[in-house]
Amino acid sequence: MRIPILKLKNLLLVSIQVMLDDKTALELQEDLLHKIHETSAEGVVLDLTSLDMIDSFIAKVIGDMVSMAELMGAKVVLTGIQPAVAITLIELGISLPDILTALDLEKGIGLLKEINVVHL
Amino acid sequence: MRIPILKLKNLLLVSIQVMLDDKTALELQEDLLHKIHETSAEGVVLDLTSLDMIDSFIAKVIGDMVSMAELMGAKVVLTGIQPAVAITLIELGISLPDILTALDLEKGIGLLKEINVVHL
Repeated sequence: MRIPILKLKNLLLVSIQVMLDDKTALELQEDLLHKIHETSAEGVVLDLTSLDMIDSFIAKVIGDMVSMAELMGAKVVLTGIQPAVAITLIELGISLPDILTALDLEKGIGLLKEINVVHL
Repeated sequence: MRIPILKLKNLLLVSIQVMLDDKTALELQEDLLHKIHETSAEGVVLDLTSLDMIDSFIAKVIGDMVSMAELMGAKVVLTGIQPAVAITLIELGISLPDILTALDLEKGIGLLKEINVVHL
């Protein structure tokens, strides 16, 4: 099953609530980019609250997904990064530079409002 | 895979983007009721945009889910009901009485705002 992407005005919401295997992560990357193109979304909130663990491949897919989305003109916020995920990312030396993060979905949307990307 | 439920303040968002089989529909019913209890959500938007077809069992599960959620104190709006789904519901004689509906996710949230259920 593919991960659902919700459209809310000019914002896309993605909530990852399953363990991401490599195939699902790549499908999400593809789906998200298509959806940004299709809906002309200007902001994306990618909620990782339910993601308990991460490996270097998934981290790279997520990092690439953010860079690709921003190339297309959408601002991305990662939300709900769990302690274990944060530890793994830093220990793997993956810094996700210049990526906006927030504590949860609401704060992520709030951040996009603050930088005038979305107006809900 | 279970259908993700997103929390946005006192609102839960559910977007069904797969064909609902009987097991998935029952799991969603259970998950949604638990999530309402857990988060004290006051509004639920159930987006059916990607649901192309429906049968009498799924229609009953969805109808029951709405009644159960409202019993628990959450107001539910169904959004994005496709023409084929609307036709099937009426032809099956399933009227989903007293259920709030709206054209899409945004309008569904708008409706809950109007009746003062959510304040985003």
